[in-house]
Amino acid sequence: MEIACRAIATSSACRFTFFNTHVAPQAMTLDTLDTPAALIDLPRMERNIALMQERMNALGVRFRPHVKTSKSIDVVRAQIAAGAQGVTVSTLKEAEAFFDAGVRDILYAVGIAPSKLPRALALRKKGCDLKLLVDNTTTAAALARFGQEHGETFEVYIEVDTDGHRSGLAPEQDALLEVGRVLHENGVRVGGVMTHAGASYELHTPDSLAACAEQERAGCVRAAERLRGAGIPCDVVSVGSTPTALSARKLDGVTEVRAGVYVFFDLVMYNVGVCTLDDIALSVLTTVIGHQPEKGWAIVDAGWMAMSRDRGTSAQTMDFGYGLPCLLDGTPLPGYRMTGANQEHGILCAVKLDPSENTASSDIETRLPIGTRLRILPNHACATSAQFPEYHVVLASGDVAVWDRFYGW
Amino acid sequence: MEIACRAIATSSACRFTFFNTHVAPQAMTLDTLDTPAALIDLPRMERNIALMQERMNALGVRFRPHVKTSKSIDVVRAQIAAGAQGVTVSTLKEAEAFFDAGVRDILYAVGIAPSKLPRALALRKKGCDLKLLVDNTTTAAALARFGQEHGETFEVYIEVDTDGHRSGLAPEQDALLEVGRVLHENGVRVGGVMTHAGASYELHTPDSLAACAEQERAGCVRAAERLRGAGIPCDVVSVGSTPTALSARKLDGVTEVRAGVYVFFDLVMYNVGVCTLDDIALSVLTTVIGHQPEKGWAIVDAGWMAMSRDRGTSAQTMDFGYGLPCLLDGTPLPGYRMTGANQEHGILCAVKLDPSENTASSDIETRLPIGTRLRILPNHACATSAQFPEYHVVLASGDVAVWDRFYGW
Repeated sequence: MEIACRAIATSSACRFTFFNTHVAPQAMTLDTLDTPAALIDLPRMERNIALMQERMNALGVRFRPHVKTSKSIDVVRAQIAAGAQGVTVSTLKEAEAFFDAGVRDILYAVGIAPSKLPRALALRKKGCDLKLLVDNTTTAAALARFGQEHGETFEVYIEVDTDGHRSGLAPEQDALLEVGRVLHENGVRVGGVMTHAGASYELHTPDSLAACAEQERAGCVRAAERLRGAGIPCDVVSVGSTPTALSARKLDGVTEVRAGVYVFFDLVMYNVGVCTLDDIALSVLTTVIGHQPEKGWAIVDAGWMAMSRDRGTSAQTMDFGYGLPCLLDGTPLPGYRMTGANQEHGILCAVKLDPSENTASSDIETRLPIGTRLRILPNHACATSAQFPEYHVVLASGDVAVWDRFYGW
Repeated sequence: MEIACRAIATSSACRFTFFNTHVAPQAMTLDTLDTPAALIDLPRMERNIALMQERMNALGVRFRPHVKTSKSIDVVRAQIAAGAQGVTVSTLKEAEAFFDAGVRDILYAVGIAPSKLPRALALRKKGCDLKLLVDNTTTAAALARFGQEHGETFEVYIEVDTDGHRSGLAPEQDALLEVGRVLHENGVRVGGVMTHAGASYELHTPDSLAACAEQERAGCVRAAERLRGAGIPCDVVSVGSTPTALSARKLDGVTEVRAGVYVFFDLVMYNVGVCTLDDIALSVLTTVIGHQPEKGWAIVDAGWMAMSRDRGTSAQTMDFGYGLPCLLDGTPLPGYRMTGANQEHGILCAVKLDPSENTASSDIETRLPIGTRLRILPNHACATSAQFPEYHVVLASGDVAVWDRFYGW
């Protein structure tokens, strides 16, 4: 039987149709770039990509990055160059954009709405090896009927729920086999099962994360075994989330892992405990535009439109407000947080966390004078990057390149 | 003396360079549109625009809408056609886009960073009547020096703080006159004073809102009087926020009012008490893609990427989660909320608020079957609309038009 997940072109034989990694025409630097800007620290991103890929190679699984985090052809090129095989997408627009850029093996990891089938069909007819996701018999039947009507053998993964956080069928549920049968007996190729341990984001100890990864693995493998036991093919066992991908101690029975935010990391992942602050590759460049000295506030030109409204650290061990301010070289400002945000205004303020910290704020105007440039680490890289039409990429040389980013559906 | 705020072209003599109000080429309807999509209910939007303009006309002030909410040429055309004079923007990109589209009188209502002055200069040299905002002597001096170096008489409003929520100088502060002098004595035209009663968003009774509007008015008028008393010209007294614009009982001494979100309204404004649910003109069209029946969940294809992460109603009288689900005709589903959101998944669930409400959720699969289309009212229209590259505009005829929307800085 053909392996469901074909390797896509690696860097040496990449058929990407456009590269946008140009150094900006005028000599752009962090001192002259318009603010706010979304910065990628390229050495950090490359290190994050390499370490994840090495881990997946060591665990003996294929790695299919979730590209919803970056929505950037250039970032995905780097992931594929490092060894990624295929991509995971969260929208059909991503599937279309990455297929146009040369990626053939694409998993659309959100349950397909029947009304989206014509768009999925168009991609497959163009040669995209697009896999769809289903977790109920209604959609399975609609998909099978649509495939028959259009002479297309769709490939589908069945979504498995291993932690109760969102969609999917529990591994022991009768409906799992019913969905498998509706697909298999009506001309749809059941490519595999897929789960996402979204509950891992709520953890923060190595043992609880390893246990969550094992629950994700075991549940998804069990679902595959039940399907196979019922005579339904199920080659792929696909698991993943950044925390579990980085915490799994074994992946027996798993064939592929997916993860997205690891490429940039963020403050939520720092609180989960799967990265250090020095691993966070995405930041927002901003400029101090004012002060309220008696309150200890510096006001910057990055508000929630730049940072996003994501307050993912609010319920975690360390609440970073709307982000952690750092100097241009990446050094965090001790005790400072973006404590408030309006649409285009961020409020930076020192929060005394430790009596030994030097966080006197009465001299805010001299500590952070008008025009000071800072880099704000975000709570959630997927949400923050989505606010920007392009990334400004800080190369190891110090040059700044521009990478496009897309959005929408 | 020339009036600082010149009326821009009204609809009859509009010099907008492009109109994008075309009905979609294929017959798009709410039943066939790709989801998620940002819908504008055009009759509601037009009513919101007309009522605000009538109120401003009755109060005897010019109205300068804040176009950060829509970032749409088509929406702003409708505001100008109704009588708006000039626009307020939150980014220089908005200023550039609306100037290109024919709007000349533009207030950039965020304290200018000195590094942005070349971009502001380029706009003024092209003929844009761009006004800048300053609240400190450092920026005032930098701006004056830059103007002298480039032979440009910038026009500046001084930002006044009337409620302590963000930027600006208090009306009685010495620095107010210092900033005025630095500008006036160094070749910068002081056009006026400007304040924004951001604290009004935290209120929800007519009397407290009227008191907030009066505090905003009185503080800003007082700042203007102090400047004029010191021999510094100050023609314009500009105040505004949607809640105070709709709550002010008199505006003596005020020359112009600004407001943004009133054009669409949202659930935060509903909780503040300045609109009804029937006034909310922005919604997100979404499709049911799955269920978790034992939890009473319907899962839709609009998650936080579509709704935004804004949870502005979380601390208000009524917490709507990530939004209020409605039928396609706009009728709210009794008791339902979007109680959770992942990037591309929204979780809808009935919350029993009133024992008489029929919110049984055990039959969620039959109540909201796969493929059901719903419209979700957003917490915050500025944040939700920012997630979309275009609006789908539902005309009174039922036809759907497409209006572009831009983003970035």
